[in-house]
Amino acid sequence: MIATSPKPPYFAVIFTSIRTEENRNYSITSERMIALAKKSKGFLGIESAREEIGITVSYWDSMEAIRDWKLNNEHLLAQKKGKEKWYKAYKVRICKVERDYGFEV
Amino acid sequence: MIATSPKPPYFAVIFTSIRTEENRNYSITSERMIALAKKSKGFLGIESAREEIGITVSYWDSMEAIRDWKLNNEHLLAQKKGKEKWYKAYKVRICKVERDYGFEV
Repeated sequence: MIATSPKPPYFAVIFTSIRTEENRNYSITSERMIALAKKSKGFLGIESAREEIGITVSYWDSMEAIRDWKLNNEHLLAQKKGKEKWYKAYKVRICKVERDYGFEV
Repeated sequence: MIATSPKPPYFAVIFTSIRTEENRNYSITSERMIALAKKSKGFLGIESAREEIGITVSYWDSMEAIRDWKLNNEHLLAQKKGKEKWYKAYKVRICKVERDYGFEV
């Protein structure tokens, strides 16, 4: 689903990644991280798709909410395992959403 | 591929979409738009993946470059056809990338 979001400004984390061949515990951890993010203070929404690369964009109401999520203990452990096992490469981009518009049939 | 990008700040357009069942001319137009974007002034890179939803993130060196790309004549025509034929819904978010970091094996 396309994430619903408030009137800008709000904030986005664009997480782009390339996976390894290692699948062990990846899906369960990935789903757990999404569930955990959804419960975190300041979380607004999340969008995700993977083909050759994976793109996950999460939306937040402040930079502080993004920092708190990055430093969540369970998330820190997942980030560590991500580097050790699941990802060949990734890039995290922290953004301020300044304008948005949409279209729906 | 994960887009290479310069030291922040730079700018991102997050285009999230849900497709219709109509495939006629979609791929050719989509590929043409990517080729056209790549030739546009201020273009930095692009990342794309589609599953249930499609996420395409393009990166630009300024807000002016994003505005010029939005107003490109051939792109305007593709946007019109997108609303008429190819997309059930989409959302465009214009962002300033304030910070980034990455990891590579």
